[in-house]
Amino acid sequence: MEGMVVCAANYVPLTPLSFLERAAFVYGDRVSIVFGDTRYSWKQTRQRCIKLASALSLLGIIPGDIVVAMAPNIPELYELHFAVPMAGAVLCPLNTKLNATALSLKLEQLEAKAIFVDYQYIEVMQEALGILSSKKVNPQFLILIQDKSNPNDDQRLDYDKLLATGKDDFKAIYPKSECNPISICYTSGSTGQPKGVIYSHRATYLYSLGESLRLGATRKTVFLWTVDMFRCNGWCFPWTMAAIGGTNVCLRNVTGNVIFDSIFIHNVTHFCGAPILLRQIAEVVEKLDCNNHPRFPHQVNVTVAGAGALPEPRVLSKFESLGFVISCGYGMSEALGPVIWRTLTSSQAENSNHDPESMVKVQEGMRSLIVEGVDVRDPITMESVPADGKTIGEVMFRSNTLMLGYIKNAQGTNTAFSGDWYRTKDLGIKHPDGYIQMKDRVVDAIVVGEEIISSLEVEEVIVRHPMVLEAAVVGKPDDVLGEIPCAFVNLKEGCSVTAQDIKDFCASRHLPEIMRPKHVFFKQLPRNSTGKIQKHLLRRELFMQ
Amino acid sequence: MEGMVVCAANYVPLTPLSFLERAAFVYGDRVSIVFGDTRYSWKQTRQRCIKLASALSLLGIIPGDIVVAMAPNIPELYELHFAVPMAGAVLCPLNTKLNATALSLKLEQLEAKAIFVDYQYIEVMQEALGILSSKKVNPQFLILIQDKSNPNDDQRLDYDKLLATGKDDFKAIYPKSECNPISICYTSGSTGQPKGVIYSHRATYLYSLGESLRLGATRKTVFLWTVDMFRCNGWCFPWTMAAIGGTNVCLRNVTGNVIFDSIFIHNVTHFCGAPILLRQIAEVVEKLDCNNHPRFPHQVNVTVAGAGALPEPRVLSKFESLGFVISCGYGMSEALGPVIWRTLTSSQAENSNHDPESMVKVQEGMRSLIVEGVDVRDPITMESVPADGKTIGEVMFRSNTLMLGYIKNAQGTNTAFSGDWYRTKDLGIKHPDGYIQMKDRVVDAIVVGEEIISSLEVEEVIVRHPMVLEAAVVGKPDDVLGEIPCAFVNLKEGCSVTAQDIKDFCASRHLPEIMRPKHVFFKQLPRNSTGKIQKHLLRRELFMQ
Repeated sequence: MEGMVVCAANYVPLTPLSFLERAAFVYGDRVSIVFGDTRYSWKQTRQRCIKLASALSLLGIIPGDIVVAMAPNIPELYELHFAVPMAGAVLCPLNTKLNATALSLKLEQLEAKAIFVDYQYIEVMQEALGILSSKKVNPQFLILIQDKSNPNDDQRLDYDKLLATGKDDFKAIYPKSECNPISICYTSGSTGQPKGVIYSHRATYLYSLGESLRLGATRKTVFLWTVDMFRCNGWCFPWTMAAIGGTNVCLRNVTGNVIFDSIFIHNVTHFCGAPILLRQIAEVVEKLDCNNHPRFPHQVNVTVAGAGALPEPRVLSKFESLGFVISCGYGMSEALGPVIWRTLTSSQAENSNHDPESMVKVQEGMRSLIVEGVDVRDPITMESVPADGKTIGEVMFRSNTLMLGYIKNAQGTNTAFSGDWYRTKDLGIKHPDGYIQMKDRVVDAIVVGEEIISSLEVEEVIVRHPMVLEAAVVGKPDDVLGEIPCAFVNLKEGCSVTAQDIKDFCASRHLPEIMRPKHVFFKQLPRNSTGKIQKHLLRRELFMQ
Repeated sequence: MEGMVVCAANYVPLTPLSFLERAAFVYGDRVSIVFGDTRYSWKQTRQRCIKLASALSLLGIIPGDIVVAMAPNIPELYELHFAVPMAGAVLCPLNTKLNATALSLKLEQLEAKAIFVDYQYIEVMQEALGILSSKKVNPQFLILIQDKSNPNDDQRLDYDKLLATGKDDFKAIYPKSECNPISICYTSGSTGQPKGVIYSHRATYLYSLGESLRLGATRKTVFLWTVDMFRCNGWCFPWTMAAIGGTNVCLRNVTGNVIFDSIFIHNVTHFCGAPILLRQIAEVVEKLDCNNHPRFPHQVNVTVAGAGALPEPRVLSKFESLGFVISCGYGMSEALGPVIWRTLTSSQAENSNHDPESMVKVQEGMRSLIVEGVDVRDPITMESVPADGKTIGEVMFRSNTLMLGYIKNAQGTNTAFSGDWYRTKDLGIKHPDGYIQMKDRVVDAIVVGEEIISSLEVEEVIVRHPMVLEAAVVGKPDDVLGEIPCAFVNLKEGCSVTAQDIKDFCASRHLPEIMRPKHVFFKQLPRNSTGKIQKHLLRRELFMQ
C-alpha cells in the first residue's frame, strides 16, 4: 500500500529487556527483589544489570556468545537473566543437581565463554572443567558467586568484583532480530538425553505478556521463587516480573516450611513449579491446626505443571481453606512452560476419584492467549482428529512462544517441528465439549498387534486397588504381538498382594483382555528430578530380562 | 546458532484475528455483543464473521482490497473489524459526520472495492458517489445496513442478505506478514487535511494486549461503545474485547443519559473516548441527587484522551462518589489511541486550580508496556533534552503500535518518522521526577524574535481571569518580531471585560512582557468534532486582517 513504511520508529524487535528499562522508570522505587536482608528497587536492579552487562562486554563477551550460570534462585541468577542478554550474549542456566560428568558434557556442547558458579557448586564445576580440559573446549572465564554470609579473602574473580568493573552508562545491546536467541535451558530428559532448548527474544517477550494476562498480575504481585530458574528460565518469570513491576522473593533453599512461612512474611501472591511443591507444602499443611492457624490474609495463586501426583482431595480442601487457588498446567521445556491449564478444586479432585492421572485432562480452551494453535492430529496424515472423545491422535502446538530448536541438534529440531506443528509426542483425544484429554506419551503407548493401548488407562485401573500406591505400565517386546503390557506396582506401606491379585482386579474392573498386564512386578518406581516416572528405565529392565 | 529454525510452528504472524478464534473456543457461550434486544455469544460472533468473510470473498474481494464502512457503533461495524481482514482485505471505517464533498475525497483516495453504509448515512453516501462518478474511481459494491426497527422490502444488497451467502466453513485468510495492513482510520484533522492512517496486524495485536494489561481486563469486562469505531478503530477495543472474552455493549446514539443508564442496566465496567464524554455525563450527574441515587454497584473505568476541558473538581468528585475511576490519556491516531495516561482524582484537579491544560502533564512512566520509547528530544539534533523541568523539546515515540504510515502520502509518512522516531509535533519538557509536561503543539508555539513562547502558558494565565470561560492564543505574523501573541477569548455568560482588562490581568499575574497578548479578540472558539480548538482557523483569521 502506497505510503507505508516499516522503520525503526514503528518496528522495534520484541525483547523482554525493554521490560526492565520501563520498570526502572515506572516502578523505580518499588521493591524488585527480596532475599534475606537484601532489598533492591527496580531502579537498582536495572543499574546493577547495566553495570554487569558492561563488565561482561569489557571482559570480551560479544553478541552470540554463551554464558553459563549454575546457581540456585538467588538475586545474582535473576540479574544474569537481564545482564547477559544486555551484553548481547545468550544465558544458559544449568541444573544445579548435575554431576561432573553430565555437567562436562553440557559444557562441551555449549562452548561457553564465561561461567558463573555459586559457591555451593564450585567443586562439581571444577571437576567438570577438569574432565573438559583434556578436550579442546575450555571457557575463558570462571566467575564465583561468593557466600555472603561467610566472607573470605578469596582472590578469584567473583560476581561483585566483576560488577564493580562495569560502567553506569553502558548502552544495553538490544537484539537486531527478535528471533535471535536469548537463552538456552536443558530439558529434564524424562525420555532420553537432555536437549538444550533455545529460546528467542520474541518468544520470551510474548510468553511474559501471556502469563501477566493469565494471572491478572499487577505491580502488587509478590512472586516466590520456587520454580528453578534453570527450568524454562523459571517459566519466564524473571522477565514477567519486570513487565508488571512486582516483587521477586528469592530463595536459596526451597522447602515446604520456607514456602509456607514466606507467604506470611512477604505476602506472597504467586508461585509455581512441579506438583512436588504441593506435596512439600502439604506436609506442612497436614500438621496445621486450621482452627488455630490464621488463614492467609490474601489469595495465593499456585500453578503446577508437569507429571506427578497431586495431593489428595482432603489436603486440597485444606489448601483451599487457607486461600490457595491451584491451577494445573500442561506444557514442556520446548514451550517455555505451561501452555494449557485449568483451575483445580478439591471437589473436582474428589469427582475424579483422586485419580492423579486425570489431572492431565485439560481444557483446550484454557490455552494461553499468546498460543496460536493447540490441536490433536493424526501424526501421519496430520489431519485433525474428530472431537468424538475416542479417536487418539498426537497433541500438537503452534505458537510464537515455542523454542527456536535444540542446540547443535538440527535433526532433533526438525523432528520436533515436522509438519509445521510442534509435536508434543503426547497422545490425546478431543471431547465434543472441546476438552483435550491426554492419553499417553507417544513413546509410552503400547502397541499390541494393531491396537494402540494407552498405558495411562491401564494404570488408572490398577491404582484404584486399595493397596496400590502407584503403578507404571510399559510394553515388553513380544515376538508374536509386538508388545505386551507389563505393570510395575508400588504398594502402600505394610500392604501385600500378588501379581495374580492385580490381574484379577483388572479383570474385575472390566479392563479389556488385551489391556490387562501380562506380568506384574512390585517395586519402588524410578523418578527423575521433576518427579516424572522414568518409564524408559522400566522398559530397559524388561528388555534385559 | 546451530540447531535453530524459524518455521510455521514457532513463528505465526501476530494478528488480532486469532483472538476471535480463541474467544469462540474459550468463551464460546459467553455474551460477546449486546445491542438493544440482540445478544450474540462469542461462538455466534465468530460464525457470523466467518460467513461474512466468505461472502466478501465470493463477491470478489481479494487480499489487499480496501472495504469502507460508514456506520455508528452497531454490531455490524464490530463484525466488519474481523470479517474484512478475515477476507484478507483492509477495513476503513469512516467518520459518520462527513459531508458529501469530504466523503467523496476520501473515497477517491481509498479506491475502495466495497462500501458498507448504515441507512442513516445512505443519502450523504449517494451524494458522494454522485460526485465520484464523474471521476474514474467507483466502488463495485454498495452494501446497505438496514434499519431493523423499520423493516421494508428494499431489494438492494444488504448486510444480512450478503452474510447469508457466506459459507460456514470458510477458512479465514491470515496475513502472510504481521506488518501487513489491517485497517485505515482518518485523523480528525485538527491541524490541516485529514490523513488516512494505516495500521498493521502486529500493531493492533500488541496494542490490544497492552490495553488488556493496563485495564486489568478479564472476561468479566463489560465495555460500553462510546468511543467511535472510526477513531483509531475504537482504540483497538473491537480486538481487545475478543482477546479477553468480555462483553461489548453497542450503541447507535451516544448521549449522557444513555451512557449513565447503560452502566446500570449492563453493569458496564469500562468505556472511553474524548473528554466531551465526561461533559455529557456531567450534565446527567449534575442533576442527580446523590443521596437518593444508588452508587454504581461496581467500579467503572473511564479513559479519556485528546484535548478538551475536563469537568470541574466539584463534578469530578461527584463522579468519584458514584464509583468512576477516570484516567486521562495522551495519544493520537498515529499511535492507535492513548500511549501515556494517568489516573485523575478530584483533589488533583483542585490542586491544579481546575486548569484544564495541566491535564496534559502526564507521567512518562505510565506509558503502556508495549510502547518501547517515549522521549523529549531536540527536533533538529535529535538529542534527548535534559530532565531539568525547563528545556523544551519535541515529544517523540518509538513503538510497535505506531501506524505504518499515511495512505498515498509517502512524504507525510517520512516526515512523521524522520530521525527514526515518531514526531508528535507536540512540545514538552522533562521534569527531574520523570514526568513529561506537554507545552504546546509545535505548530501552536509562537516564535517572537528568537524566543519560543508556549501558547498554552499564556492561555493558562488568561483563563484564571474570573470572567473568562476559555482562551486560545496564536501568533500573528509581524514584520519586526516574526510573530506576536494574540488572544481569542470566550467569556462566561453575561460577563463583559475589555481587551485592556485582559492585558492588565496578564501583567498583574507577572506574565513576561514578551508573552502578553498584543491583541485580544472576544468570540466563540471554533472546535473540531473531537472538541479540539481549531487554532489554524484563528491563525487564518489573523492573517486575513
